[in-house]
This record gives sequence, C-alpha cells and structure tokens, in this order.
Amino acid sequence: MIAGIIGAAGYAGAELIRILLAHPNITGLSLASVSKPGENITSLYPNFLGPVKGNNPSLAKFGTAGTLLVAPEDCIAASDIVFGALPAGTGEGYAKLCLEKGISYIDLSADFRFDGCETYSAWYGKPWQHPDLHLRSVYGLPELNRNRIKELTAAGPVIIGNPGCYPTAVSLACYPALCQNPGAANTCIKPSPGPVIADAISGVSGTGREPARNNHFSECSDAVSAYKVGAHRHTPEINETISKMAGRFVPLVFTPHLGPLNRGILATIYIPLATTTESLTAKPQSKEISEKEAAIRNCYAAFYKDEPFIRVLPENIYAATNRVRQSNYCDMSVHLDHTGSVLIVESAIDNMVKGAAGQAVQNMNIVLGFNETEGLNALPALF
Amino acid sequence: MIAGIIGAAGYAGAELIRILLAHPNITGLSLASVSKPGENITSLYPNFLGPVKGNNPSLAKFGTAGTLLVAPEDCIAASDIVFGALPAGTGEGYAKLCLEKGISYIDLSADFRFDGCETYSAWYGKPWQHPDLHLRSVYGLPELNRNRIKELTAAGPVIIGNPGCYPTAVSLACYPALCQNPGAANTCIKPSPGPVIADAISGVSGTGREPARNNHFSECSDAVSAYKVGAHRHTPEINETISKMAGRFVPLVFTPHLGPLNRGILATIYIPLATTTESLTAKPQSKEISEKEAAIRNCYAAFYKDEPFIRVLPENIYAATNRVRQSNYCDMSVHLDHTGSVLIVESAIDNMVKGAAGQAVQNMNIVLGFNETEGLNALPALF
Amino acid sequence: MIAGIIGAAGYAGAELIRILLAHPNITGLSLASVSKPGENITSLYPNFLGPVKGNNPSLAKFGTAGTLLVAPEDCIAASDIVFGALPAGTGEGYAKLCLEKGISYIDLSADFRFDGCETYSAWYGKPWQHPDLHLRSVYGLPELNRNRIKELTAAGPVIIGNPGCYPTAVSLACYPALCQNPGAANTCIKPSPGPVIADAISGVSGTGREPARNNHFSECSDAVSAYKVGAHRHTPEINETISKMAGRFVPLVFTPHLGPLNRGILATIYIPLATTTESLTAKPQSKEISEKEAAIRNCYAAFYKDEPFIRVLPENIYAATNRVRQSNYCDMSVHLDHTGSVLIVESAIDNMVKGAAGQAVQNMNIVLGFNETEGLNALPALF
Amino acid sequence: MIAGIIGAAGYAGAELIRILLAHPNITGLSLASVSKPGENITSLYPNFLGPVKGNNPSLAKFGTAGTLLVAPEDCIAASDIVFGALPAGTGEGYAKLCLEKGISYIDLSADFRFDGCETYSAWYGKPWQHPDLHLRSVYGLPELNRNRIKELTAAGPVIIGNPGCYPTAVSLACYPALCQNPGAANTCIKPSPGPVIADAISGVSGTGREPARNNHFSECSDAVSAYKVGAHRHTPEINETISKMAGRFVPLVFTPHLGPLNRGILATIYIPLATTTESLTAKPQSKEISEKEAAIRNCYAAFYKDEPFIRVLPENIYAATNRVRQSNYCDMSVHLDHTGSVLIVESAIDNMVKGAAGQAVQNMNIVLGFNETEGLNALPALF
Repeated sequence: MIAGIIGAAGYAGAELIRILLAHPNITGLSLASVSKPGENITSLYPNFLGPVKGNNPSLAKFGTAGTLLVAPEDCIAASDIVFGALPAGTGEGYAKLCLEKGISYIDLSADFRFDGCETYSAWYGKPWQHPDLHLRSVYGLPELNRNRIKELTAAGPVIIGNPGCYPTAVSLACYPALCQNPGAANTCIKPSPGPVIADAISGVSGTGREPARNNHFSECSDAVSAYKVGAHRHTPEINETISKMAGRFVPLVFTPHLGPLNRGILATIYIPLATTTESLTAKPQSKEISEKEAAIRNCYAAFYKDEPFIRVLPENIYAATNRVRQSNYCDMSVHLDHTGSVLIVESAIDNMVKGAAGQAVQNMNIVLGFNETEGLNALPALF
Repeated sequence: MIAGIIGAAGYAGAELIRILLAHPNITGLSLASVSKPGENITSLYPNFLGPVKGNNPSLAKFGTAGTLLVAPEDCIAASDIVFGALPAGTGEGYAKLCLEKGISYIDLSADFRFDGCETYSAWYGKPWQHPDLHLRSVYGLPELNRNRIKELTAAGPVIIGNPGCYPTAVSLACYPALCQNPGAANTCIKPSPGPVIADAISGVSGTGREPARNNHFSECSDAVSAYKVGAHRHTPEINETISKMAGRFVPLVFTPHLGPLNRGILATIYIPLATTTESLTAKPQSKEISEKEAAIRNCYAAFYKDEPFIRVLPENIYAATNRVRQSNYCDMSVHLDHTGSVLIVESAIDNMVKGAAGQAVQNMNIVLGFNETEGLNALPALF
Repeated sequence: MIAGIIGAAGYAGAELIRILLAHPNITGLSLASVSKPGENITSLYPNFLGPVKGNNPSLAKFGTAGTLLVAPEDCIAASDIVFGALPAGTGEGYAKLCLEKGISYIDLSADFRFDGCETYSAWYGKPWQHPDLHLRSVYGLPELNRNRIKELTAAGPVIIGNPGCYPTAVSLACYPALCQNPGAANTCIKPSPGPVIADAISGVSGTGREPARNNHFSECSDAVSAYKVGAHRHTPEINETISKMAGRFVPLVFTPHLGPLNRGILATIYIPLATTTESLTAKPQSKEISEKEAAIRNCYAAFYKDEPFIRVLPENIYAATNRVRQSNYCDMSVHLDHTGSVLIVESAIDNMVKGAAGQAVQNMNIVLGFNETEGLNALPALF
Repeated sequence: MIAGIIGAAGYAGAELIRILLAHPNITGLSLASVSKPGENITSLYPNFLGPVKGNNPSLAKFGTAGTLLVAPEDCIAASDIVFGALPAGTGEGYAKLCLEKGISYIDLSADFRFDGCETYSAWYGKPWQHPDLHLRSVYGLPELNRNRIKELTAAGPVIIGNPGCYPTAVSLACYPALCQNPGAANTCIKPSPGPVIADAISGVSGTGREPARNNHFSECSDAVSAYKVGAHRHTPEINETISKMAGRFVPLVFTPHLGPLNRGILATIYIPLATTTESLTAKPQSKEISEKEAAIRNCYAAFYKDEPFIRVLPENIYAATNRVRQSNYCDMSVHLDHTGSVLIVESAIDNMVKGAAGQAVQNMNIVLGFNETEGLNALPALF
C-alpha cells in the first residue's frame, strides 16, 4: 500500500513521513511538493537520513523516486491513498484528481471541514470551487464521525476533511458535556445556554516552517501572547462542531495564544453549568463541589470508554502538553471552579499528531480498514 | 536611607536587591534570611558579585555586614524601611516589630492582602495573629489605593500588603471595565453580571527557588499545564479586589497555568458584556464590532492616562510577557470576541517585578515620598 | 521474553520502559524500584497511562504486577534479562543475582565500564566488591566490542557495562581517526600524539529526575555553563576507551557543559593532526584543505559503513542534537579548522537513548540474538 | 549630548537604544535606519512604548523626530556621536561623514577591526574603500586598548572598531595567560606554543532579527550544533588580537556553536601549558594540580584587578551566560584539566552587551570622557 503526501516539505508533511515510515501496513511512500519538486527530503529534513549502512527497514519505503520530491500529479499516480498537507484553497483540486483515479484523499487544509460553503467563504475569503466533491467528504474527527466515515467509505473513495488542531483539542473536550444523545453518559452535567469559552495555547510548530517574526526564537522564547483574537479561522470550525455535538447552537468565544514550546496545544474550556453557587469567602472547593467534580469526571471517562486515543485523567493529574508529545492521545482533565458553577476541562494534544498528521493516519486506518490505532501505538516519553 | 530585605535569599528577595541596588534614593541595604543567616548573598547569587576592581557604585550599598545575610531582627534594627519576602503566616510578626520601631513594612506575603480575617483564614488555613495591625495596613495596588496609601502614611508608619502576582495582572485588566465611580472613563463598557473568567499562565520563577518536580527543566520545558484549578489562593484576593473595583460582588473563575518561561504572567480576562450578538456564520469581527472594540480600547487608555506603569497597547499589538520583562509595566491589549459579546483583555506583567518586587518598590516610593517611578524607569529589552 | 528494569522510576528507567513497550520481541516488563516499591509507574509517569479503553497493545506488557513497582529481587525472579538503571556502586549485587539465576544483566551504572579496578576506585571512591564478576562482563559499546559481546554471550549469561553518555558520543567520534587496526579505512588521517580535546554539552535530563538547583528551570534555562572541569567521572572512561581504540595511550582533556535543552549531547572533538599549516591571513579553508577534509569525511563514512546507528553526515550538514532526538543514532560531521591542522568532529546523540537506554536495548538485542536494530528503528522527528 | 544610532532597527541597535535611554549623560537620541526610514521604532519594538501617561523620563530623550526612524545622513547631522550597527562593508562611509563633521563614530561592523586590509579582504571578500580613515581608528577592546583610545581621542574625533562578540569573550579570556608585558601578573602561567582552541556557543540573538531557518524556534530550540567550522569570520579577528596580546603569532582553532538561549556567549578556551603530566589512572586533580590552578586563578584576578567589567570568579563558581545577562560583565572562571597540562578558561558575556552595544557604550564613555562605567552599572538578574 503506497501512501502519497502532497506538501511533504512542510511540518505536517514531515510528521506524516515520520509516522508512515513506522506504519506496518504502508509499504511505500510517494512524496510531493508544489514548491520544491526535485529537492531531496533528506536535504530539507536531515533527520530522515539513513545510517551509513542504510539498512533501516523504514527507509526502504522510499520508493522508485527515493527521497526526491515529485510533482503532485505524479504522487497521485503512484499512490493508493493521498494526504494533502497544504494551505486552504488547494485541497479541492487534488481531491478531484484522487476521486477520479478512484482513491481516497485526506485533506489537512480547511477545504473540507465545513458543512456549508457559506461559513467557509465568510472566513476563508473564497467559495468552494467544486461543491459536488463535498458530497463525498466527511469531517474526520473519528470520535464524532467514525460511523459516518465508514458508511461513506463503503460506497467508494472518500474525502476526509481532517480537523484543525485547535478544533480537535477543544471539541473533544466539549463533547461529553454537550452531547444530548439519548443514553449519553452525561446525565450529571447540565450546561447552561451561555457561551463556551475556549482559551488555548499552541506551540510554535503551529506557525509552520516558513521563518517569520512570530517563530523567531528571540521573539517567541520566554514569551506568551494571544493572536488573532476574535478573528482566528478555527473559530467557526469549533463553533460548528460543538453545536453539532450539542444538537443546538452553542455560542463560542475562542482565544488562541502562542507559547514557547515546540509541540502541543493546551486548551482550557469553560462550560457554564445550569446551577451557580457564588460566595466570596467560599473555601477552596467544598466537599459537595468535589463530589460533583468527581461525578462529572466519571461521566467523561464513561463517555469515552471505548475511545483508543482519549485519556480522561484521574483526579490530581492535569492534562499537560509534554505528556502527549509525539503521540496521538488527547489527554483531558476535568475540574470545577471553586464555586462549582463552571466546568473547566483541560485538554492537551500534540498539535502535529492528534492535531494534524496522527489524526490523518487514524482516518486513513479507518478508510482503509486497518486497525484504527495501527502505527499510532507508541507511548509518549515524558520529555 | 537603608532598606532591609527579610527573605533576601528567595527569588523575590533577590529581585528586590537588584532593583534597590540601582535605586537612587536607597543608600544602603541590609539583607536578612530566616533559614540562611551567615551565608553570603554572592554565594547564593553570583550574579551579584562585584568586578575585580569592586568599584561598581551599586555594590557600595552593601553596608557593614557586606553581603552576608543577617538575622531578621538585626535587619530591622539597621533599616529605615523593611521588605518581607516570606511565606504566608510570617509577615505579621515582622510587621509588628517594624511598627514598634516606627518604620514602615512592605509585606510580599498574603498576610495583609485581605480586608477581613475570615477570607484569609478560609484559604490560608489560619487566622490573623494580630488583627490590630491590620488597621495600619493597606492593599498595595497603587492604581487602586494610591490615595489610601498616602493618607495612611501621613498618620505614621504603615504596613503594605503587596498584591499577589496573578491578582495584579488580573485586577488591573478588569478595573476600567468594572469601575463604577462617577466620572469613570468607561461609559462605553456595559458588563453583564455574569462571572469574570481569568485564565492566566505564569513563568516558572513563580514556583520559587526551592527545587521541585514542577520547576525541573525536563518536567516543565516544552510543557504547559494548569494547576490548583478551583483552589488557588489568589482566587479570593482577585475576587475581593475586583468586587471592590466594581462596587458589587463580581463572580470570578480563575485558572492558573504554568508555562515554559522564566518571567512573566499573561492573563486573559473574559468580561461578559450586557449585549450579545451571536451568529454561526459571522465574519471575523464586523466593522460595527471593530468600532465598538476601538471605543472600549480608548476607554481603557483614558482610564489609565495618568498611570506611569500601565501601557494600554494600540490596536494590533498584543500584550506579551517578553515585552515587559524586568520592567514594572503592566501591558494590556483590549479585544472583543468575534460576536462582540465578550470583552477580552490580555494583561502582561513580569511576575517578579510588577507582580512582586517592583510593585513593592513602587509602594516604597509612595510611602517614603519619592517619585513613584524612581528606580523603576528602565525600559524593557525585547529579549 | 520478560525484561526487568531495576531503577524504573528514574529517567533512564522510564526511557527503557518507553523503548521496550514498543519492542516486538519483549512480551512483558517487570518494573522494580529500590526506593519506591509499591508505587504505580503511571503515578510517577502519567505519560504511560493507557487510554480509557486501555486497549493499547503495548500496555498489555505490564504483567501480573501491572504497573506497580516491585522489589528488585522479585523483578529478577520474574525476568529473562534485567536492566539496572542505578547509581554507581549498586550494579555488582544485582549482576551477581542475575548470573546466579542464569540470566544476563545490563548495567547502566559505571560498575562494569572499566578494565581494571584501579581506575574505577580512583574516580568512584570505592573498589569493586566482586572482582570475579568482571570476568563475565564486557564494555557495551557495540561498534567497538560487538564481537566480544557475542563471544562472551556464547559462553553463558553475561554482564554488560553500558557506556556513559559522554563516552559514547566522544569515543565513537574518535574511533575512525585513532583506530590503528590493519586495514582500517583511515589511512588519510594522521593524528599527532598530542591530547584529544573533547568539549561537550549535555541536556538537563542528564542530571536525573531528582530536583536540584542545576535542573531548576529558572537556573538553567537561557544558560550555559561548564561543570566538574578536570573532575568529571566520564574522563577515565573516555580515556580508556579511546586509548584502546588507538592501541596506545591517548591523552585527553574533557570538559562537560550543561545547556538549556532536554535531550541530547553534542560533543566537539579536537584531534591534532601530524601536519600543521598556520597563517594569520589564510582565507577560510583553501581548496587544498577542503579536499583534505572531504577525504577524511570519506574515511569516516567508509569506517562506519556497516554500522546501523552511525550517520556520518554529508558536507554542509552539521551534527545537531535535535535531529537524533528519541533515536539511537549517533550523528557525526567531520571538519577541519581553517589551517587544516586539527580534525574537528561534531558528534550528536540523544543522551537518554544512544547514551543510555537505547544502547542498552541494542546490547540486549545482541545478547539475546535479536536483530541488533529491533525496537530501535524509528526515525527521529525534527522537533 | 545627542547620540545617533544608524541601524536602530536591528537587535544591536535596539540594545543601544535600551542602554542609552538609561544613560545619564545622553540627553537625546537620533535613530536612523537604512531600510526602514519613516517607520516608528515603537512599531518595531513595542517594548519601547511609553505608558499612557508618557512620563517616563527616558522617553523624553526621543527628540524632535520622536520615535520615527530617520535617514542616516539626518542622524549624523543631529548627533554629537554616532553608532553604526550595520553589516560589514557599510561602516566606512558613515565614518567618513562623521569625521568630516568632526564627531566620533563607533562602528559595530567588522570594517575597523583589523590592522591591515589584507586580512579583512581575505575574510570579508572586499578591500577597504578608504584606507586613510583607518589611521584615525582603533580596535575598541578597552581592556587592551584603553590608552590608545584615549591618545587618539586627544587628537580629534576617532573611529572605534567595536569588537565582535566571540572575539571579546575569547580574547579577554586569553589575555592574562598570553600577555608577555614586563611586570604582567602572569608569571605562574607558562603557555606552550601550541594552538589555542576556542570552543564557543552563542545564543540565537546572534543571528540577528531577520527570520531564518537557523533562528526558527522549532529548528533551534532543544538543539545545539556547530556552524561555519573553519570558516567563521571572527577567526582572524581573534587570531590577530590574541597574537597582539602575546607579542607573537598564536595559532588558533575556533569553533562556534548555536544553542537554545537568547542572550549570551560561553567560550571555553584551551591553552596548552608548557609542562604536561599525563596518567590514565590519575585521580581527579591532585592536590598539586589544584594548587597550581589556584595560583593561575590568582594571576588572572591580579591581572584584571583594575578592570570594572571583568569578574574573575572564585573557585567552584563557573562562568555562566545567565549571570551576565543584560550586563556588560565578562565573567571568567579558571580551571586546569585533570592532568594539569591544559589551562581551561570559561568566559561568559552577554553577546548583545559586552559583545556589542554595551562595549560600544563603554567605548563612547572613554571617547567622550565620561566615567567608563556610566550607564553600565546595573547588576544582572539571575534570570
């Protein structure tokens, strides 16, 4: 099974390479770049160099072109499934070529993340070019849409709109609290209709490989600041996803920050609860509030009990970006504020893995009928 | 004028040393340590070593004891004003000694931060020992209590309850929006009665100098996580302060995080506004919302127009921890979410300066009748 | 095949867990701790928590004791091979127990790294307790001693003295230049008898998990300094190893530094060459010198052409710690100074992998007859 | 006294601004930029924004042009002394204009660092344009050339060739060992004629403000690597300077590295001594060697006893980049290797201060007859 990667020279592309080289069901890779065809991936990423002996079995996956980057069309021609790790607006064209060839396409841009063109064009500044393609696409958040992905796949090649990094971290943290499906394990959680506030911080790899002021070490080390407040393009994606989870429109405030770490997103989600207790002199969390917190934590664990990549953490362990690094896990810890009136969920992912390449491979596994965790089982190091 | 520092061996103590060595009105320092009397501050902090020639004029401020740490009582005896940079529960005793000697005491612990003993004992686990001392004390947030500090000082030596780091960053960011004083420059801001949410991240220096798991480089670099959610002791301090600013009880949710930076706190404050617009497909900030945002930003700037240490940033510049490093500034940027329903203020301070030692020196300047910015005028480097 | 890890709670122990959980030939783990028996490894390292579903196949390797740490003796009893990740002076006892049981022991302390007791006791302050054990031990640098490990293994259970982190990075970089074996591919390199200078910098994980001043984030971030100059215990280990490689006594100067990174050692090795050209006005590397440099680089590549974990980098790519992170590679780049008189080799390893746990697993693979690269094939990410 | 800064938008320029804003003898600044005339320095460096009240006395120094960047010629016209913080090859022109106007020029490029044009053109690829200007120039390392600077200044306006960052850290560490002046306090140090090896690591600010692959956070955090081995342009500058100090040609090997810190250079200098003791089993530093080390350390302290910016550290304290951050100090610690045959000096500076802007201000103080330490007395923080 040959996997193609268009946009292999970017950070998400490189992360796809790393994961797929170790994937037992992928026997070959075809790497493409729009801007750098003809370059060698090992010049761009010397971390992928082989040893002198060159006998690392992973490296044998670089096929006839070896480690040279080819043109996107050649990549599609050589592949059984294709990943597009490209800017918004470029995905539809490659998706079309893939479907025409009869293979599935997993798009890491925003082109296939929205239900309707209106929201997309409002935030991305241009309409879809091929609305019909979107009938064969599905938003690739497996915890929400696993069955839909399988159904669609059963009918032929599909397009996966791989979720954004922030939307993954935020939406997964909201799902157990907002879900209103009959039988959902969240009966102890009563959200109020007020807005969900998602305050998130991302590592610098999220800015991409292009050198810029905001990823210059001297400008971003020892520094934290917000950016694009009220204007980040992941806002409508989160808004649409959590509203779908809730079965109602859920107001959202989303504030992204940039912090001096390489990998990882930590999202802090504030979900207002229906009942409010407020007291200036309240001790830190009464016994009553602690019990309520434990009950909600148990709801979360029950809700996600069959999910292979969600870790609802036990009491006293906080979700932390370092403990999911290079893994596909989404860690979440569940808390109440001192008055018991707001549910606070801390959600941590590796923005390059569960937030991009790892989730894309998870989607590939579903689409191709592999074990969903194949190639994604490595446990993270602490550092 | 001799300044004494009890707790000189800790990070806040060392920061007091750094600032006071450069303070033009302080001619000598007396350094004390409860746990390390007899040790030399230059062994603990070789950054304070003099050059071979020893002719740095600052160093002449180390007096008869030179750079040796003395006992607290000796420090008080030798000083004209005393700083206590010590854990909660230890401040009252030294405050008593200072008042008895007839000199003022600036306390960096939580002992003098609360109006009443009830809140203090609920969160700190023990009551005040000397309630009468608190009649001579004032919460040392100059932007809120400058006049009160001066009034109290006019009547004799005083005790300053120097604010906590998070409360400084959060309260200052809330003040222009919540203040209901007649004539306050905030007529364009209409907060709703809902809870203020303060989501903040602190640098590792906030954990103090004692080595611990949470300040181990390998455990906290490339990592962000929350801690003490619903239980942090700065919660009631913020709650009390912003309620005082508002003239009403303001519900508060406060979530502290730890991030991989040395200095700095960035607080993101969410203040719900009275009017709400919500739309799933809203474009990023309509012109109407942008104008509303600009009006609120102008209110903030007008509100703080006479404050020497508040920088309300122009549009498109976000408050960032690095740009206030080693300075006494509190930078704040003013934003609206994409629906215009929540005011979002980003507030950045250096947790060791405006969040501790710098604000303490600012208070000293007020108490001793110096220019309030004396010794605190250095502009920050970018890195 | 059950692998035991004594000292599982330390960083090297945790790294062994991470690698062995993904090792295809290891079916179970037995974790032991001297100081923390009865604790759960997932409390100490929440990164090893399973997902809600608990279906990560790796986690099934935690055996009857699950993730609880047992006593060392119980670990040895349960295991087919044992790793000791413990301080110097503790390895001999466990080695003895393993040999008595008839299984091999891989020791990550310094106890089995020296040929004679004299050097060990001079630097470690105490003599060997069981000199006879050392007849069954071998210094586990596979690139130097692979055959010796195999020979010894053929005769029964063995003890591996797993090399120190600095000695691995430094010795491997010296080997092609110093080796005098007939037929060695180094005929173009003529070292002078002068001292080899090894200047190295290590990441903070090298200080271990115990919190201390030198691993406090605020003391070691944005900081580089040397430590233990002229006194580091890896000095005699390097000295003995490179002398063995050269077949003569090679004088050594070794200077370790600590830098603000988590993982990695970068060693810069200066090997004086027999011919010296010196000119104040020499241009940066004449064509003649560049050609000489290329020839030496080719010698290095040829020397290591069969080594699976050595990457001799092409011209213009410098060895860098980040590009070997979490991998067992030793990257080296080969340079000449501007006068062509000193060979400069830059050598990068992950101090926790090729410098500790990874090399230990490499040794295990040799001892147990597995493919030498088993469990160690994952290519590193860039970050 | 108005100071002009051409190249104010770069990092060295911004550092000059920071230092000069706090300098008591400088009453005004004129900021110029070749590439960004008309831009506002506070847009480029919001850290220099004033508070709302705008009453920071430092800020009053921004003169008629306020914080707008002017053209270089206008800057020269407005100034009493001018700093050029520009790339190599641009300094001569501005120097000429300054001398013509009758004011001194302090050049931070390499244009005035060499005694002869031959070396400069060999390494920088082009000859001097105005050889006559160099008769009025002096290499501005005050510890070496203080008297020469004063002599030249006595005769009229001068040009200072401000030293490079690496050359400052390395040369100052070599001076006491190599100096052969009669009466020099170094009689206990007997260097051999062998090459001095200088292994140095620099923080990322050394790469300048232009975003590039080598200063991208994700490429350089958690990473150390060498660069330009055998080819760095600071090589001939160091070579010429230490040869002048020694009164003979001193062979040099120089290897620069880049590390994940913002500010600072740590140089490790290896100076071979005339006598060599070598023993494989030597204990870590015999009493004899320790005493020899202490004697050399005392020589260093005596040599620099009148220098205001050199701190020769006591035993057991290692030079560290963090402890000189934002200061003009050069810290050095003195060591012997375990055999006592090589002198190892660790030398730490802030590359932006003593390595650039601070030393430039020190030179300005000498040229203008101010106290040499004016504006440079602030003691560094630990972090």
